[in-house]
Amino acid sequence: MAPGAGLDAILRPRSIAVIGASQDATKIGGRPVQLLQRFGFPGAIWPVNPRAAEVQGLPAFASPAALPEAPDLAIIAVAAEHAAAALEECAARGTRAAVVFSSGFAELGAEGEAAQAALGAIAARTAMRILGPNCLGAVSVAERSIATFSIVLEGALPPAGPLGIASQSGNLGSYTMLLARERGIGVSRFLTTGNECDVDIADAIAWLAQDDATKVVLAVLETCRDAPRLVRALELARDAGKPVVVLKIGATAAGQAAAASHTGALAGNDAVFDAVFARTGAVRVRSVEALLDLGHAAAVCGGTLPRGRRTMLLTASGGFGVLLADAATAVGLELPAPEPATQQRILSVVPFASPRNPVDATAQMGARPEVLVEILAAILDDPNCDALLLQLAASLYVPRLRGVFLPALKAMREKHPKKLLMLSVHGPADAVAELTALGIPVVDGVDASTATLAGLCALAEARRTPTPPTAALPPAAPLEAAALCTEAAAKRALAEAGVPVLPERVVQDAAEAAAAAAELGFPVVLKIVSPDLPHKTEVGGVVLDLGDAEAVAAAHDAMLARIRIAAPDARIEGVLVSPMLRGGVELILGSKRDPVFGPVVLVGLGGIFAEIMQDVAIRPAPVDEPEALAMLRGLRAFPVLDGARGRPKADIAAAARAVAALSRFAAQQAATIAEVDINPLLLRPEGQGAVALDALIIPREDRP
Amino acid sequence: MAPGAGLDAILRPRSIAVIGASQDATKIGGRPVQLLQRFGFPGAIWPVNPRAAEVQGLPAFASPAALPEAPDLAIIAVAAEHAAAALEECAARGTRAAVVFSSGFAELGAEGEAAQAALGAIAARTAMRILGPNCLGAVSVAERSIATFSIVLEGALPPAGPLGIASQSGNLGSYTMLLARERGIGVSRFLTTGNECDVDIADAIAWLAQDDATKVVLAVLETCRDAPRLVRALELARDAGKPVVVLKIGATAAGQAAAASHTGALAGNDAVFDAVFARTGAVRVRSVEALLDLGHAAAVCGGTLPRGRRTMLLTASGGFGVLLADAATAVGLELPAPEPATQQRILSVVPFASPRNPVDATAQMGARPEVLVEILAAILDDPNCDALLLQLAASLYVPRLRGVFLPALKAMREKHPKKLLMLSVHGPADAVAELTALGIPVVDGVDASTATLAGLCALAEARRTPTPPTAALPPAAPLEAAALCTEAAAKRALAEAGVPVLPERVVQDAAEAAAAAAELGFPVVLKIVSPDLPHKTEVGGVVLDLGDAEAVAAAHDAMLARIRIAAPDARIEGVLVSPMLRGGVELILGSKRDPVFGPVVLVGLGGIFAEIMQDVAIRPAPVDEPEALAMLRGLRAFPVLDGARGRPKADIAAAARAVAALSRFAAQQAATIAEVDINPLLLRPEGQGAVALDALIIPREDRP
Repeated sequence: MAPGAGLDAILRPRSIAVIGASQDATKIGGRPVQLLQRFGFPGAIWPVNPRAAEVQGLPAFASPAALPEAPDLAIIAVAAEHAAAALEECAARGTRAAVVFSSGFAELGAEGEAAQAALGAIAARTAMRILGPNCLGAVSVAERSIATFSIVLEGALPPAGPLGIASQSGNLGSYTMLLARERGIGVSRFLTTGNECDVDIADAIAWLAQDDATKVVLAVLETCRDAPRLVRALELARDAGKPVVVLKIGATAAGQAAAASHTGALAGNDAVFDAVFARTGAVRVRSVEALLDLGHAAAVCGGTLPRGRRTMLLTASGGFGVLLADAATAVGLELPAPEPATQQRILSVVPFASPRNPVDATAQMGARPEVLVEILAAILDDPNCDALLLQLAASLYVPRLRGVFLPALKAMREKHPKKLLMLSVHGPADAVAELTALGIPVVDGVDASTATLAGLCALAEARRTPTPPTAALPPAAPLEAAALCTEAAAKRALAEAGVPVLPERVVQDAAEAAAAAAELGFPVVLKIVSPDLPHKTEVGGVVLDLGDAEAVAAAHDAMLARIRIAAPDARIEGVLVSPMLRGGVELILGSKRDPVFGPVVLVGLGGIFAEIMQDVAIRPAPVDEPEALAMLRGLRAFPVLDGARGRPKADIAAAARAVAALSRFAAQQAATIAEVDINPLLLRPEGQGAVALDALIIPREDRP
Repeated sequence: MAPGAGLDAILRPRSIAVIGASQDATKIGGRPVQLLQRFGFPGAIWPVNPRAAEVQGLPAFASPAALPEAPDLAIIAVAAEHAAAALEECAARGTRAAVVFSSGFAELGAEGEAAQAALGAIAARTAMRILGPNCLGAVSVAERSIATFSIVLEGALPPAGPLGIASQSGNLGSYTMLLARERGIGVSRFLTTGNECDVDIADAIAWLAQDDATKVVLAVLETCRDAPRLVRALELARDAGKPVVVLKIGATAAGQAAAASHTGALAGNDAVFDAVFARTGAVRVRSVEALLDLGHAAAVCGGTLPRGRRTMLLTASGGFGVLLADAATAVGLELPAPEPATQQRILSVVPFASPRNPVDATAQMGARPEVLVEILAAILDDPNCDALLLQLAASLYVPRLRGVFLPALKAMREKHPKKLLMLSVHGPADAVAELTALGIPVVDGVDASTATLAGLCALAEARRTPTPPTAALPPAAPLEAAALCTEAAAKRALAEAGVPVLPERVVQDAAEAAAAAAELGFPVVLKIVSPDLPHKTEVGGVVLDLGDAEAVAAAHDAMLARIRIAAPDARIEGVLVSPMLRGGVELILGSKRDPVFGPVVLVGLGGIFAEIMQDVAIRPAPVDEPEALAMLRGLRAFPVLDGARGRPKADIAAAARAVAALSRFAAQQAATIAEVDINPLLLRPEGQGAVALDALIIPREDRP
């Protein structure tokens, strides 16, 4: 089923039945009945309770079968052991969708998983979409459709507005809704997917991407049960021009362990999620507060995203200027100096201002607030300004200042409709609302405002970057088992896939070895070829730097003699003769299987960098060459390849080609191979290419 | 003058004269007159204004000379050009201290600096302490002494309480006071030092360290004009048992440039500030919000700091648990699993709980809030629990839950007075106040609460760590100029200082070279000795790996011949013969002069790590061996030395000895040398020591 199909009944129901409806509004079967009435749901509300004639003032029904019509939506608020029966009855009555609040399913382990699978089977069989179980349900604010028992709504609803919240975690989703309400930020929908027996987070994102009331999607992810669906949903949002801001939790090993224990699903490598978000243009944040800050700012500035990262900071305080500069630098904003003419304009208005970036208009901005409009004009006219971040601390609390600052900001916003003008200010709420209505995003706090601006830049960059072509690789024949056994065979398979290797010969005796070496050119390397000896060095199966035919022949025989003692049972297929290369930088390339995303490709610098400094880039396979290049550029050690401190520049393009080729190979052979290790790929100086000096392919244990 | 002396008159004045007092309360000369009256300052308020008989209802005086008595404190709110005269008049009248609001001094450059120096000279000559110029003044909350024009006090005063705020930046200091007031957090004093013509941030910190009303010092630093005084002030606070939380701004190059332009002072290496804070037990934060969070939490928990970093997380939500685990890991907290018995106790209360860490008590905590007390008891009894962080989201807004949770927390706080129990919760304010009064720190937000807890751990660690001995090195005779010229001389000087070098000989001809090599043992290295050739390799002045006497003699003559052509005018003092060592890890050791802290010592791994990855530790010289070891352990590449992935363990103790020796040398020769570079120090396997293979000393240009 396409992601998002059938969710209308959950978010725009005309009638809602509450199975397990309770008189007690603090119970999960009582709260929706109360909330639907309290917030004025205009459709039918049908409590179902075999032991009551009336629930909270509404006539109750004994069972779904007794309902006057088929409901669009059924809320299931019964104990876990009765959920399946309730769903069957609802489906039999023609219910289009159900929300299952009940917990006690996959989150409890194997037994619960079986019970949950039974619910999923009902969805599959009846085409009734099921949200949950173990979820907090769904809310549509404008429609007053409140299919939740979230304690947050014991207060008030948030105002109706542009943010659609899709969350696997009920609590994080409803906490987001709470903060939105407190800040007066408008919400369109709230949708929590819980254990996802049927409707998953991809459904939720995809539906919001196509929802007219939703302009920005806030997604909270804890796991991913179907990676291709998630990617499709994120692509749908991108194609609809709707920013997606993601709080993906489980970024650390401790968080992933907690998430696995909470959801019962395998975690997946967190960095692979990053790569998926980068490809689909979703921007990741690390906290609920940041989720709301960035989502709200994106909604407020609409199409006026920053054109680039060149940010001008404006403040009335030297100290705040320093703090802003630190924070802006830390999140990757650029702080160019204004043009000399701009600096002159600023100084002509405030002679003692600091006209560089941050621009410090000094206490003059409090003494003569009317200077603000001219300083804003000067900065917004500057060609180096992609965005202007104005820090006003708490000065909008002072009526005298507010009365001058707000009209100045309004005038500048209108005069420069295409340049992002943003505020970092601490209240008051009504001034913030007024600014927001002008299309000026306002964020409280130095760190939060600079991080939000950087997030807006990332959203803008995603919009500007051409979408990488969807992977549509021709199917590949599964590799023969033989290709997986030895270095020589692995290299042949990789060479065919486009990974450069050296010309090599497998030889059977010393004379052949010497002849092959002469043909390949001295010096050469000899390595044992045996499916039983993957770790060649440990058995003396590698000899380097042999300079003439005599040395090659002698080394060949000595190696075989050594191995006959060290590993008498190993099957020997011969000895590999290859040219000995010197010079260049060693990379480690590899692929392995991610439990969520399948084949992934990795690259890092050899030795200490990859192994000790954990400086490795990882993406889902396949990647194209530009994406492979981005992986290399993202390494902390990238300057080592890029000619830092007088080193020779390495052939980075060749490395990117090799990464892309390996990634295509890993994707096409996903059914066959578990892991590929190319260690090292010798990367030579610019223009001289790269070669895989050693390679190992590990087959899947479950290969067909 | 000892830091803090004479500040009583600023913070506990019995009488305040306002020079330049204005009728208009929005003017800087009007606001203090208004605020002193509005907040009920009990002492005398004397407006001074030659053109008014009365100011804001108070009798005005024509000049300081006309005042009825000598005031304790004079506020100077006149234009910059009149400030010196006003101060002279105040001093003549016997005023004990003055606060200068006027701007237009060093922040404007050279001319302003001269005017400011004149103010400083008045302070020095008259012993009247002067705060400012260009500062926001000082406030004592309980005493209602309001010597400020901060716009923040157009609202209300914060409650009187334990936090003393000392800030170089007026705006950041008063924004801190504003946030404290909004959150109902008590403040003792507010003291901003501005341009620091006399009273500096060290005075402010030192005075607060000795102030009975202040329990925790919040310091905002933008620069440091006198490093030894700052260190003494921080030590005073540490010795008084008062936590110091520092917001030091200018952490990035952009921030430092902004700070330099704002303060006119040189920035100083930010990492050296970190080292100074680490030594003196001050804990650094990165935002005003974090400053207040940590300062307040430290005041609330008083002596009950966490015994270690082993943190138990407790939540009612799987999603929040994951987020907490991520955030706690990111700030360096440890998350041990509870003992099996503890897990059993938790499961006996909530069978479907996740009893590991984070402990997820699930929605059961909402359905049966009475379980909280038993889960808290189980966790606080666990021997692996140094601190318990309970996440309650917004549930204290629900009266039913609040009514159970608060008594449970009170009971547990009383039962476990020595274990830190902390809350991450979002309002309401009165519940937060109630918990705070119990000694339970409460912080809003997942990131903020975990960061605050980590800050409390750092404060506790500083308290447990023995104070490093104050540097009291015997004075050293200045080095002879000759010692600074060549590698051989530099090594002799360093060897005398305790940095290990190889046995070496300077020879004058080929025969001597061969004899020296035979004595030292083959293979050897030859290097040219010339004060004119600091870069020996570039002129062919280094030959490695000479295996016998004949080779040494030949290489000697060939080298001299080469250099006679490459550098015919260079003075040649001979050729250095040293043993050629192999094996080990190369470190770079160095010292240079920091503009704030003077001689500093640096260490990093050689090559890529130090130069490209910027993986270098830096501390003020001298350091002792434990501190040198801490520097090495703090390197990202430390595992390379520590035997990671099967590498040999390096002689880390020898490296620490060399760093400490170099640092003592740099400190003792601070008047003579600008820089020392030891590149490389070859660090051999454990037990085999370290040797400086090359060294360069650069003298100070201004050496005596």
